[in-house]
Amino acid sequence: MKYTDLKQRVYEANMRLPELDLVIFTWGNVSEVDRENKVVAIKPSGVSYDNLKAEDIVILELETGEVIEGDMNPSSDTDTHLILYQRFPNIGGIVHTHSTWAVSWAQACCDLTAYGTTHADTFYGDVPATRKLTDEEILSEYEKNTGKVIIETFEERNIDPMAVPGVLVSGHGPFTFGEDASKAVDNSKVLDECCRMATLTRIVNPDIQRIEQGLLDKHYMRKHGPNAYYGQK
Amino acid sequence: MKYTDLKQRVYEANMRLPELDLVIFTWGNVSEVDRENKVVAIKPSGVSYDNLKAEDIVILELETGEVIEGDMNPSSDTDTHLILYQRFPNIGGIVHTHSTWAVSWAQACCDLTAYGTTHADTFYGDVPATRKLTDEEILSEYEKNTGKVIIETFEERNIDPMAVPGVLVSGHGPFTFGEDASKAVDNSKVLDECCRMATLTRIVNPDIQRIEQGLLDKHYMRKHGPNAYYGQK
Amino acid sequence: MKYTDLKQRVYEANMRLPELDLVIFTWGNVSEVDRENKVVAIKPSGVSYDNLKAEDIVILELETGEVIEGDMNPSSDTDTHLILYQRFPNIGGIVHTHSTWAVSWAQACCDLTAYGTTHADTFYGDVPATRKLTDEEILSEYEKNTGKVIIETFEERNIDPMAVPGVLVSGHGPFTFGEDASKAVDNSKVLDECCRMATLTRIVNPDIQRIEQGLLDKHYMRKHGPNAYYGQK
Amino acid sequence: MKYTDLKQRVYEANMRLPELDLVIFTWGNVSEVDRENKVVAIKPSGVSYDNLKAEDIVILELETGEVIEGDMNPSSDTDTHLILYQRFPNIGGIVHTHSTWAVSWAQACCDLTAYGTTHADTFYGDVPATRKLTDEEILSEYEKNTGKVIIETFEERNIDPMAVPGVLVSGHGPFTFGEDASKAVDNSKVLDECCRMATLTRIVNPDIQRIEQGLLDKHYMRKHGPNAYYGQK
Repeated sequence: MKYTDLKQRVYEANMRLPELDLVIFTWGNVSEVDRENKVVAIKPSGVSYDNLKAEDIVILELETGEVIEGDMNPSSDTDTHLILYQRFPNIGGIVHTHSTWAVSWAQACCDLTAYGTTHADTFYGDVPATRKLTDEEILSEYEKNTGKVIIETFEERNIDPMAVPGVLVSGHGPFTFGEDASKAVDNSKVLDECCRMATLTRIVNPDIQRIEQGLLDKHYMRKHGPNAYYGQK
Repeated sequence: MKYTDLKQRVYEANMRLPELDLVIFTWGNVSEVDRENKVVAIKPSGVSYDNLKAEDIVILELETGEVIEGDMNPSSDTDTHLILYQRFPNIGGIVHTHSTWAVSWAQACCDLTAYGTTHADTFYGDVPATRKLTDEEILSEYEKNTGKVIIETFEERNIDPMAVPGVLVSGHGPFTFGEDASKAVDNSKVLDECCRMATLTRIVNPDIQRIEQGLLDKHYMRKHGPNAYYGQK
Repeated sequence: MKYTDLKQRVYEANMRLPELDLVIFTWGNVSEVDRENKVVAIKPSGVSYDNLKAEDIVILELETGEVIEGDMNPSSDTDTHLILYQRFPNIGGIVHTHSTWAVSWAQACCDLTAYGTTHADTFYGDVPATRKLTDEEILSEYEKNTGKVIIETFEERNIDPMAVPGVLVSGHGPFTFGEDASKAVDNSKVLDECCRMATLTRIVNPDIQRIEQGLLDKHYMRKHGPNAYYGQK
Repeated sequence: MKYTDLKQRVYEANMRLPELDLVIFTWGNVSEVDRENKVVAIKPSGVSYDNLKAEDIVILELETGEVIEGDMNPSSDTDTHLILYQRFPNIGGIVHTHSTWAVSWAQACCDLTAYGTTHADTFYGDVPATRKLTDEEILSEYEKNTGKVIIETFEERNIDPMAVPGVLVSGHGPFTFGEDASKAVDNSKVLDECCRMATLTRIVNPDIQRIEQGLLDKHYMRKHGPNAYYGQK
């Protein structure tokens, strides 16, 4: 059992999803990549969070998706995770959920506008919504094509997925990224809360515009920039 | 006491309603049918979930509604449950609640539009709202007529109640179905959450349309179709 | 200590308000009348629910409001409670809260429309909003005048406060009634939930109309009418 | 360790933020001033509430911001707190959060209208939204300038920050005040709840107007005026 620590970490990150009210039933999955050993650890498919154990986490080869540890089927969304790790070398963890507010924006097929500093503290700009998949993309290799349309979204708009570590797959739901699995879970919670705040902001003032670029820069940079001064050291 | 196991199962399914935040007070009831013995087990009427015990579950004959085990009155909605079991041979469990979001759509007398994959994973198409009952249908055999208008809804629209295991009774609230009581409870939670997401989706984008048929097919079939690959085995 | 049982009952009814998510801080009060002894028991003013004890409940004379047991000031809303007990002989308990959804309708100065059977199971018709108090009514005997405008609302519209056991005081919040303190608390929860459902119903379908009279009659009467058949016996 | 009691008090006030559902992660900070010793106690920057300990609270000089006790960096918002204590001599505690409903109004750049007595019991008038900061104000001394624009808001509109103990910083979020840290936390909860109620009130009745001045006066004064009669003594 070479990957005991990795499984434990991915297990704990998965268990944070129900704790943070981001999933009910089996509606989410978390993975983390070990780039040195070129493997990915991911939740098994359709297993309830009440029954999930660390040893259930499945270990796959990053390039081929071949299972190398674990007795269960990996998440049905595994091919989406794999292609994102393959294309974006800085992503360390990925989360997919059906969290209420982020799904609502994904179903609305709308980019999440950056309306305030809560958003800017984590996402350096609007969180993009993908285009819809074509019938062909759905019929064959659906999960892999979901990953491809995410990649297309970031590349066509020239967005760094670590600067805007989240995306709304139209008609489906959110994926978030992070330097590891736990950070990606944090970003899922922030994305859901920012979707909630944005919905309410528009109800209060339907004419409101995006936050000014200067304030977006300031808040993102004071946490994530080269001269960041938020937090301890 | 022939039906101890059935009562225990229906008791546990009932107790999941308050756990899943689907009922307050006595606003819900769960039943399950034993088709071999032609009996139905259902919650007693007006009993608080705090006080409910497994032995309180009432056993009735499927065809006549005659009580064959239990000292309490069965749910006031029993006649709705019975007629649904009689007409739809594949239904194993039925749930009725006054859950917030599903009631809001039922009161709005609107079909729940399928806006995304969260919906498609459980409901293979829009969840129908019934027509309103006539004064005559309300005055005599109200609960039985509620069941009849549900049956009419599925039959006129040619919907399989196991493919779309839920319905919104206009001006009243949701009923959901499942292969057993516990699955029907799952579907009540999914229905309430899909109603919530649909409401929020419309607020974000009032012009949004139904999910594409291809994506609906894909998600429903990957969980429920002959070649389903979601979950274990 | 003649009224130990009454105090205990009113204490327990008060403590249900935070349990049912109807109050934060000190934003609510419950009373009960003992018509035989012509006394009212009510929560003391401004005491946090964390610190409230049964012996803190204040006993007052129904007609004069004179304190006859208790060391603390009674609720600042006491004069509203007293005049309602004096005028409506069937009311046994009264609750006032600042619960979120009921306050929202009170602040909107709108009658709560009966949109479905959840409403009809408790309230036999729309829940009325009072007119606003005049400056004169506010400046002198404000709390007593709040009670008077509630009485005016029920009398002018010819509504029985036990058939529609709740009212929205415009710009302020809800009061509910019941045969005892605990039933009045139940009705506060139902009122808040019906306000929530009505808000959401209107969002889903802005053109929706009141529930049909036949369905309102049916649901109210199957629980509260002379031939009621809901519940046990 | 001269300020053990002050640290304990500020620690406890900070810990109330997650208990009252006002913060997730590290999204808030509470401070209190000791005017006799001219020091301010504040939460350290970026420390999770799960890990916060009383000894982590940082003590700074009121006038210079120099750290005089504590090993951690003070909140990144410290300069906002300091300038508010320097300018407003009656403020004893300050709270900043990213609570959902108050942020939504801040992002909407709207004053919170006083729609009812829930608002009037704490805020003697609308809660103002600041103007937006200029790019210059953001680029240099951002946190101090946030404090300055808050001060400008209260001074230009001639509002006493202890009579309206809260403000919405446009595009950012709420700050609240109080006679001590714990009272400022209370006011954060009231502000968030009033923002929630106001949003819902507008949904129910888009044409609703501000509460009448007479009712605002009455409720504010019965709790806070010279002849206040709410509460005990």
